Amino acid sequence: MIFSSALIENAVSEFARLPGVGKKTALRLVLHLLKQDTAQVELFAEAIAKMRRQIKFCTTCHNVSDEDTCTICANASRNHKVVCVVESIRDVIAIENTQQFNGVYHVLGGIISPIDGIGPDQLQIHSLVERVQRDGVEEVIMALSPTIEGDTTIYYLSKKLKDYPVKVTTIARGIAFGGELEYADEMTLARSLTNRLPLDNYLQQGK
Amino acid sequence: MIFSSALIENAVSEFARLPGVGKKTALRLVLHLLKQDTAQVELFAEAIAKMRRQIKFCTTCHNVSDEDTCTICANASRNHKVVCVVESIRDVIAIENTQQFNGVYHVLGGIISPIDGIGPDQLQIHSLVERVQRDGVEEVIMALSPTIEGDTTIYYLSKKLKDYPVKVTTIARGIAFGGELEYADEMTLARSLTNRLPLDNYLQQGK
Repeated sequence: MIFSSALIENAVSEFARLPGVGKKTALRLVLHLLKQDTAQVELFAEAIAKMRRQIKFCTTCHNVSDEDTCTICANASRNHKVVCVVESIRDVIAIENTQQFNGVYHVLGGIISPIDGIGPDQLQIHSLVERVQRDGVEEVIMALSPTIEGDTTIYYLSKKLKDYPVKVTTIARGIAFGGELEYADEMTLARSLTNRLPLDNYLQQGK
Repeated sequence: MIFSSALIENAVSEFARLPGVGKKTALRLVLHLLKQDTAQVELFAEAIAKMRRQIKFCTTCHNVSDEDTCTICANASRNHKVVCVVESIRDVIAIENTQQFNGVYHVLGGIISPIDGIGPDQLQIHSLVERVQRDGVEEVIMALSPTIEGDTTIYYLSKKLKDYPVKVTTIARGIAFGGELEYADEMTLARSLTNRLPLDNYLQQGK
């Protein structure tokens, strides 16, 4: 693309670095910002720079945080004996949005994936084991993606935790709500049969 | 959405103000930036803020510019006697990308649209007439969208320019390259018949 302004060209190419944003979309966003008040655009830019500059990671659960301890770990009304292990911050947000979980989290920062060169040492596994030991955690819930890498990580973690008096569980795999049985893959369908529920339990959850 | 960090929440809601960016996309972009170096993110934010703060509009053609006169108007090798009238900056970029036009531009800043409350006085029409008079412009090419508003604007401009010794033309309307005849609307098809070209002209353009 040919621009008659280096300022515009620079802003467009910065936007185009973002995932899923091409040159045309970047230009559209830049021209939109050009129509906004300068003060409004400065707020936008400052919100982003400040976020990156000031963000911290919770020293307990490794979730993003404005302080050394995140609002979830600092919340005394949550159950600190139940720890939900997730891959990333995104998963914390997804689970928080369900408003169904009252425990705390542990963000691994990835999952074991030899093909991507990610081994246990790059993840927050040591600090999880330490936490279980130190805080007398009663249950560790593995909320990892149902992939080979996810299952490998679950297996590795369960071995690390087997010597401690802690219950290890994993979130249920099964047919998604609204999903069609015939389009489910065999593995999912097989697991949903193996882990079938008494109808009474199921009906109660629907209430 | 529930965030455990006000910094993240703020950045997400700023991103979500952009056109075509919802909360989920905004979160994806923010989490992407979180993984980048602080210096890189500051560059991104600064490119945007600086662009909005320092951008100027060319005093001659009203295109965006880094200086008082844009690079197109300042270019002595372009033909300043041929002025292409467009609605917005975006159209300048589109025409420049064809690399087929060697004249200069005049950005109206919109088109006449009574329904949106945009009359001739809100547009750069007076400055166009002045420019034609002052600079001895030989041809004004109307490159406006083929809509009712575009045609109204063309009609209004042609009346304003009729007392000056300037040729007024408009870009061709017709079937788009690669377009299918049967799906063209009647108006376009009718105009493309009325403005048919001798075959020799057409074949020469294909070279």
